[in-house]
Amino acid sequence: MSTSSGTEEMLPKPEGLEGVVAASTALSHVYGEEGRLVYRGYDIHELAGKASFEEVAHLLWIGHLPNRAELASFCARLWSNRDLPEGVIRTLEAMPADAAPMDALRTGVSALGAVDRERFDAVPDLDEAMALAARVPSILAAFFRLRQGKKPIAPRSDLNTAQHYLYQLFGEVPDERHWQPLEVYLTLLADHGMNASTFAARVIASTQSDLCSAVTGAIGALKGPLHGGAPGLVLDMLNEIGSADNVDPWLTHAMDNNVRLMGFGHRVYKAEDPRAEILRGMAQQAADPAFFDLSLRTETRALEMLEERKPGRRLYTNVEFYTAAVLAAVGLPGDMFTPTFAVSRTVGWTAHVLEQGANNRLIRPQSEFVGRTDKTFVPIDQR
Amino acid sequence: MSTSSGTEEMLPKPEGLEGVVAASTALSHVYGEEGRLVYRGYDIHELAGKASFEEVAHLLWIGHLPNRAELASFCARLWSNRDLPEGVIRTLEAMPADAAPMDALRTGVSALGAVDRERFDAVPDLDEAMALAARVPSILAAFFRLRQGKKPIAPRSDLNTAQHYLYQLFGEVPDERHWQPLEVYLTLLADHGMNASTFAARVIASTQSDLCSAVTGAIGALKGPLHGGAPGLVLDMLNEIGSADNVDPWLTHAMDNNVRLMGFGHRVYKAEDPRAEILRGMAQQAADPAFFDLSLRTETRALEMLEERKPGRRLYTNVEFYTAAVLAAVGLPGDMFTPTFAVSRTVGWTAHVLEQGANNRLIRPQSEFVGRTDKTFVPIDQR
Repeated sequence: MSTSSGTEEMLPKPEGLEGVVAASTALSHVYGEEGRLVYRGYDIHELAGKASFEEVAHLLWIGHLPNRAELASFCARLWSNRDLPEGVIRTLEAMPADAAPMDALRTGVSALGAVDRERFDAVPDLDEAMALAARVPSILAAFFRLRQGKKPIAPRSDLNTAQHYLYQLFGEVPDERHWQPLEVYLTLLADHGMNASTFAARVIASTQSDLCSAVTGAIGALKGPLHGGAPGLVLDMLNEIGSADNVDPWLTHAMDNNVRLMGFGHRVYKAEDPRAEILRGMAQQAADPAFFDLSLRTETRALEMLEERKPGRRLYTNVEFYTAAVLAAVGLPGDMFTPTFAVSRTVGWTAHVLEQGANNRLIRPQSEFVGRTDKTFVPIDQR
Repeated sequence: MSTSSGTEEMLPKPEGLEGVVAASTALSHVYGEEGRLVYRGYDIHELAGKASFEEVAHLLWIGHLPNRAELASFCARLWSNRDLPEGVIRTLEAMPADAAPMDALRTGVSALGAVDRERFDAVPDLDEAMALAARVPSILAAFFRLRQGKKPIAPRSDLNTAQHYLYQLFGEVPDERHWQPLEVYLTLLADHGMNASTFAARVIASTQSDLCSAVTGAIGALKGPLHGGAPGLVLDMLNEIGSADNVDPWLTHAMDNNVRLMGFGHRVYKAEDPRAEILRGMAQQAADPAFFDLSLRTETRALEMLEERKPGRRLYTNVEFYTAAVLAAVGLPGDMFTPTFAVSRTVGWTAHVLEQGANNRLIRPQSEFVGRTDKTFVPIDQR
């Protein structure tokens, strides 16, 4: 057995690239020890509930918070980009009603790149980023309608992203009680350093592939339960627990049997995720009080019991935990939680693709070979 | 301006993760200094022209070269998996005739995951890998027929992968002169260490996402001209050069104007890519003699002129350069070269996804933040 790496020099291998700097970015940063998230210089607490999702998108894509005139022209440009080409609608019609919405979204974004080649098969730029980000909620809403046997709703250009997404999903202009928590949610999730889906997007973009390829790959990565795929599972878990009385027995049973608790822990945060903190406050205001109490009790007891069993691990609830309560309060079913995360994160993904392209080098790491190297071919009749 | 990384410890940042070990693998390794490629212990020269594509797939997926009985049952299993669900055909019908085949393939694989959720929305295993790899050529062939206004051809289970791919593309069982060079090509391209598309697949799989998500992302990465997207461009370049007389003037003009030469250079190889060497020999046998001579003269003069202009850079033609001559000889148009690369590499991608899953840790690197961190929110009317 040989683990030879030939004569090449190799750098040490931290599992899962933990702590390895894969790229520079001016977009956002996660300060894991302090529990801080910064978008282009602004702490997330500075933005949440104050800046609109469109202001945050302007900040990430263009680099500064817009003034009124800039925001008006930016919104006009973004909101006029919500129509889906016929080929994308036909692709979504080919999806079965029980397809996972994340699979439908991944397929719809890929189809958009294939169908509108003139727009998307070029060096990615801000126009493309806006054209794609505006269409991600349209793709989701179209599939959401089609799976119920309903027709997709034609887009409007007079509603903001949060309003318009709910309008296209449910067919009515939503009231503030519903779209405002969604808007805050969207501002919180728009970017998050070199997370796995953003990293996947940058790896793909680094080959000089196109924007839809990068975002299609990112959607596939976000889907995984170790990344963005957990909030629907948090809802399932809380529904299974069912009542405050059952929290302790349920958690004891889960921990005794090494069942993974959904919505706890994060690779980078060793303090509370600031987004979780903000979402908890929103859930307290917006969610059904019984469901909020169940969530809070589950969080509190789980953290206490985890600390008892494995002291010092500095585990906290992550952004997915209270996402369940907030997005359920907005009226979304559990299988639309992760897709709604993608509505927001498409801004970050596309901003990272533009940043990667501005100073590109192919992202092509090495591997450590752990097999033999000395085998001799033997014809099949002698094996 | 601050480049603070908080209190976290960060490892140094090689651009594009060059030389950074991102994962261990027992599947294949590229010895860049020596110009060697090894699949599970076998030098590629041991396998090329001796082992069939199916034997190589068995080697990569299962770990050893099969004996006759193992190969027979393996082929029966693989070749019975070529049918496309109706929803995938409908998705491909939604693609315009001028869609890029790589975009159609990316969309078709994504649709397969959405449509056949029972099979593909599970923890990836060998059954899934074989089910997907067998369908990648079917998806390409179906799109290839549909874009000509023809019906896709129903699959058979009595032809090997190279034969069957050409059969479904062109409607006739190919003669040996055509399918044999394709088969050797497929064995050469099946895996290649931690290349960008394989790495993208592993990043996506590391979130515990599904196999079709990982391969969809990999297809998007392969499409980029810095990775697998170049062989069609090599064909374009050689056609533009047109004749041996024009090689020197064309290259001089290109080098004077910093035009990127297609099919030269590789991140890892600092010696000749062994696949390029094998493909050159195949091109000499299989390609139109005039086209082979043009290719050889272009290669020879480009390397001489590059050495004159930038001595010591150790540049060589890469695998894409003679891919053009070989796949053109097989009868494929230029825009099917990179998709045909994907037919082969799907074996490697899926083998890496299985390997990643066997000992998974989320691949989540860090980023270096190069922006400010201290901005204070100002309401829009005060900006």
